[in-house]
Amino acid sequence: MPAEIDFYFDFSSSYSYVATPGIIEIADKRDVSVNWKPILLGVIFNALGHAPPAADSPKMRHAQRDLERCAEAAGLPPFGFPTPFPFAAITASRAFWYLHDSDPDKAVEWAKAVFNASFAERRDCSSPEVLSDIAAGLGHDPQQLLEATATDAVKARFKAVTGEAMERGVFGAPTFFVGDEMFWGGDRLAHLERFLDKA
Amino acid sequence: MPAEIDFYFDFSSSYSYVATPGIIEIADKRDVSVNWKPILLGVIFNALGHAPPAADSPKMRHAQRDLERCAEAAGLPPFGFPTPFPFAAITASRAFWYLHDSDPDKAVEWAKAVFNASFAERRDCSSPEVLSDIAAGLGHDPQQLLEATATDAVKARFKAVTGEAMERGVFGAPTFFVGDEMFWGGDRLAHLERFLDKA
Repeated sequence: MPAEIDFYFDFSSSYSYVATPGIIEIADKRDVSVNWKPILLGVIFNALGHAPPAADSPKMRHAQRDLERCAEAAGLPPFGFPTPFPFAAITASRAFWYLHDSDPDKAVEWAKAVFNASFAERRDCSSPEVLSDIAAGLGHDPQQLLEATATDAVKARFKAVTGEAMERGVFGAPTFFVGDEMFWGGDRLAHLERFLDKA
Repeated sequence: MPAEIDFYFDFSSSYSYVATPGIIEIADKRDVSVNWKPILLGVIFNALGHAPPAADSPKMRHAQRDLERCAEAAGLPPFGFPTPFPFAAITASRAFWYLHDSDPDKAVEWAKAVFNASFAERRDCSSPEVLSDIAAGLGHDPQQLLEATATDAVKARFKAVTGEAMERGVFGAPTFFVGDEMFWGGDRLAHLERFLDKA
């Protein structure tokens, strides 16, 4: 059985958020580890010439209802988009990679808290104040964490992971890999599960 | 329990094809009827300014593998795109609506056969010869059927259903409705199932 799942996501991706309970459950059941990997999807969209759908488009109107159903099915709190949406997830992502260097589990804890603040509490996670609150709630020094996000090493790390994702063919989020097998979308977790069980 | 499911699809939509066993199973289990409704998605894409992904894009490379997995999971034959793809599904669709006027079940039988010819046998269902073959195999008079697709009544019927879909908010295929509740994508069949069981 493969030892791990790579999980590429963007903090501003609502569909990444609603996929988190599912991927955790699948991995836990099989004692497989999940590598949480926040990326900056905007960079990939720009490179590929993708544009996200307009807020008042039929697609986004459907997405609102769909995400409510997805959150309910995943056992998450009632879903809501924060304002603004999409939001700049760059600081939240860099904080993840800073925490990851010393303790990957703390980084995952951060990711879950940022997702919950964004899509359950509808708080603006592009705001340093909101991120400071979340950091304090998890026992981190908010000022130290925010300062770390401005260092070249952390910036470079985040940029490298986004580049790695694009090279592997990522064009949206969430995207999962088991080895070279790629699965796009939380709605493909059943495929991933079958693949794991056949491997 | 709601009496019916509206199922909007395009004959050239591979994701509509792989959703067919699922929607049939869900409806049969509950004795709910399915209204199969082929539309011309290109008209809706043009109106909304959507462009399908390029054949050599990361998204389409993923789709090839994904559709193989979807077909396998749905118990369909090994999946393959026909050449050309996408193909002009207008004649196949008009034939559906012509058959539908006298016998909706015969129209559904036609839809299944066209889908199978396209994505299992990889035949070009924009070709009158291929459509004639399929028609003959189902016991229809091929010439009569093809001639019927050129009548104003059948053309108008097909156009009207595409317009109806767009008015209801359809922006992709497959799209399902139970009353006003809309579900986009074969990967949302579990949501539709829960919705039916709650209703």
